[in-house]
Amino acid sequence: MKRNLLLTPGPTQLPPEICASLGKPIIHHRTPQFQDNLKEAVEGLKFLFQTKNDVYILTSSGTGGMEAAVCNLLSRGDKAITVEGGKFGERWTELCRTYGVDTKVIEVPWGKAIQPETIQQALEKDKAIKAVFITLCETSTGVTTDVKAIASVVKNTPAVLVVDAISGLGVIDLQTDCWSVDVVVSGSQKGFMLPPGLAFISVSPKALRLVEQSQSPRYYFDLREAKKAAEKADTPYTPAIGIVIALMESLRWMKETGLENLFSHYARLAKATRAAAESLGLTLFPDPSCISNVLTTINLPPGVDGEKLVKRMRDTYGISVAGGQDHLKGKIIRIAHMGCLDEYDMLTGISCLEKVLKEMKYSFTLGAGLSAAQKVFNE
Amino acid sequence: MKRNLLLTPGPTQLPPEICASLGKPIIHHRTPQFQDNLKEAVEGLKFLFQTKNDVYILTSSGTGGMEAAVCNLLSRGDKAITVEGGKFGERWTELCRTYGVDTKVIEVPWGKAIQPETIQQALEKDKAIKAVFITLCETSTGVTTDVKAIASVVKNTPAVLVVDAISGLGVIDLQTDCWSVDVVVSGSQKGFMLPPGLAFISVSPKALRLVEQSQSPRYYFDLREAKKAAEKADTPYTPAIGIVIALMESLRWMKETGLENLFSHYARLAKATRAAAESLGLTLFPDPSCISNVLTTINLPPGVDGEKLVKRMRDTYGISVAGGQDHLKGKIIRIAHMGCLDEYDMLTGISCLEKVLKEMKYSFTLGAGLSAAQKVFNE
Repeated sequence: MKRNLLLTPGPTQLPPEICASLGKPIIHHRTPQFQDNLKEAVEGLKFLFQTKNDVYILTSSGTGGMEAAVCNLLSRGDKAITVEGGKFGERWTELCRTYGVDTKVIEVPWGKAIQPETIQQALEKDKAIKAVFITLCETSTGVTTDVKAIASVVKNTPAVLVVDAISGLGVIDLQTDCWSVDVVVSGSQKGFMLPPGLAFISVSPKALRLVEQSQSPRYYFDLREAKKAAEKADTPYTPAIGIVIALMESLRWMKETGLENLFSHYARLAKATRAAAESLGLTLFPDPSCISNVLTTINLPPGVDGEKLVKRMRDTYGISVAGGQDHLKGKIIRIAHMGCLDEYDMLTGISCLEKVLKEMKYSFTLGAGLSAAQKVFNE
Repeated sequence: MKRNLLLTPGPTQLPPEICASLGKPIIHHRTPQFQDNLKEAVEGLKFLFQTKNDVYILTSSGTGGMEAAVCNLLSRGDKAITVEGGKFGERWTELCRTYGVDTKVIEVPWGKAIQPETIQQALEKDKAIKAVFITLCETSTGVTTDVKAIASVVKNTPAVLVVDAISGLGVIDLQTDCWSVDVVVSGSQKGFMLPPGLAFISVSPKALRLVEQSQSPRYYFDLREAKKAAEKADTPYTPAIGIVIALMESLRWMKETGLENLFSHYARLAKATRAAAESLGLTLFPDPSCISNVLTTINLPPGVDGEKLVKRMRDTYGISVAGGQDHLKGKIIRIAHMGCLDEYDMLTGISCLEKVLKEMKYSFTLGAGLSAAQKVFNE
C-alpha cells in the first residue's frame, strides 16, 4: 500500500489518464492519423508557449533542446552571455564553450536572481554579443528569473534571448511573444506532466535568421530540417510517438484548464508549502525577491542530513523529494509543485517531511506544517 | 473491430506486456530502484549485442545514435568510408560530411550488397582511413550486409567498423565481439519491440581510443560523459525512464527466448512471406544473394500503385505495411518481420495484401499467397 508520489522537480507525477495513453498500442508516424496528433500537439505547444513562432518537437531530454539552441544559433568565435546562478545556468556555459563560442559568464550567487541591468551593461559594453542565455526557473536553487525585464533589455539589441524553460513552463508565466523572447526551450517531464523523452523549442524570426547563418555542425538537432519537416506536419526522424500522443492529450487538458488557472493553482501549492516550512521553524533557500512557485527549496537545520532525509522519505514512506546538488548536497531539500499535484499531495509531502524530521530528532510541534498549509488552502 | 497491425519496418508491433509496462506510473531516475532497472537493461543489451563492450543508452531516435558514432569517432579532416546502397547508407555520408569528414562514398545499386573486397581495396588504397560505416539491414531495400566478412577485413587495419544495426538487431545475427565489430548502433522501435525514443551504441576499446581523440563538438551525445555516467549506473541527462524500464522487460523476455530461437522465428516469417509473394506472381526486390529476413521487399506489378495499395491496406483494413522511398516510391511494398509478430500476423498481412491486389485488378489466384505461407509454416 506504499504510495509512490513524485514531489521531485522532474520527472513529475503523471495523471492516470496520461499513463493510460502511454499504455496504448503504437501507431506509425508517417500516417495521416499521427499527423493529426502532431498538428494538435504543436498547436497546444504554441498555446502553452504563448507564441505564434514555430515550436519544434525533438526526441531527446531537455539538454538536447538546449544543445539545439546553441548549435543552431551560434558559430565558433561568436560571442554570447550566459548567467550562472545554479547548475542549469552552468549548462549553458558548457554548451557554448563546446561549440567554441566566446562566452561571457555572469555569475550570480546561488539563491539570487540576475539583475536585468547587469545584462544591459554587458550588452552595451560589447555590441557584438549575439545571444543571451538565461534560465526561467533554476531548479537547483528554486529561483525564478525576471524574464520579462531581461527581454525588454535584449529586444532592443542585435542579440537574441534564449530561455531554458525546461523547468517552469506551464507552471509560471512566460509570455514568449508579448515579452519578445526569441528562443524558449522546454522538456516533457516537468510542467507537461509527461515522462521524459521530448524537448521543445520555439524560434522567433530574429532567431531563425541566426539558424540560417550558423556554421556549427549539427544533424539530429538541425532546426533547418525540423522546420522543413514541420511544414509537412512531420518530424525529420522517428519521434517518440507514444509521448507525442500523450503530449497532445496533456496539452488538450491544459488548454481546457486555462493558463491563469494553472498558474494560480501552482502558486497556491507553493505558498502553502512555504508557510508549512516556516511554521516548522525552517528557512527558505532563495532570496525572497526571486522565490519560485515551481518548487520550494528549504534549508535544513544543522544536524539533519539532507541525503538521509530524502532517502528515508522515499525508501521508507514512498514520497520522493529532491536533495541539494553540488555544494548544497545534504543541506537543502527541494519540493516540486509541478506535475499532476493537488493540495492533498502537498499535505502528504509535508506530513512525511514532519514524520522524518521528527525521527531525525529535529525539534518542532508535530502538525504545525500541516496546519499552516491547511490555512493557506482554505483562505 | 478494425485491427491495428504494424507490419512496418519501424515502429513495430508492441507486445501487450510492453504496453502495460509503458502505462505504469513513472519513477525517479536518480534512485537505487531505477539504477537496478538500468543495470539490468544494459546487461540485456550486452546479451543482444553479443558483446562485452560498453553499451550506452541515449534518449533519441536511432539517428541520434548514428550522429553519436560519427562525432565521437571522427574530427574535421579525418577520412572515412561510407557505403550507400539505400536511404540509410546515405545518412552515414550526410553525417560524416556534416562533421567535415573527408568521406569516400562507395555506391552500390539499391537491392545489392557491398562486396567485402571493395572495402578491402579502398582500405588498402588509403591507409589513413579511420572508420568504415555500413548498414546491417538496409530498410529501404530489404538487403542484409555481410557484416562478418567486412569485419574480418577491417579488423586488420587501423580503421574501426561502425554498423548501423537499428534495423535488424535481435532479428538476424550480429556477433559484435566474435566478428570484431567496433561500434554498433541500434534503436528501440524495431527488433526491441518498443516505442521509438531510445538509441543504443556499443563501443570497443579500439573505438574508445578514437572517442578520446575526437575534436568534433558534442555535448548531449558525448560518449565520454555517457561512459562516466555508466560507471555509476547512471545516464548524463534524464533518460526516457518509461522506455528504459520497458526495455529491461523486453530484453528479459528476449534472453529467456534465446537468440537462436529469435533468429529462426523471424527467418520462418520471412521465408513464408517470400513464398507467398512468389506464388502471387510477384518478384522480390533485393538480389537473392543478400535478401534479408528483417523485412520482405516486393516489386509491385505494372498498373498497381504502391502508394494507393499501402493507404488502402492501412486506412480501410487496419494493416500497416511500408511503401517505397525516393525512386522506389509507389513501386515496392515492404513487409516487416521485426517486432512482436507471429505466423498468424503474417497470414493476416498476406490476406490483406491479396484482398487489395484483387481490388486493384491485379490478376492472380485468391488464396495462393496464404496457401504458400501456410506450407512454409507447417514444414
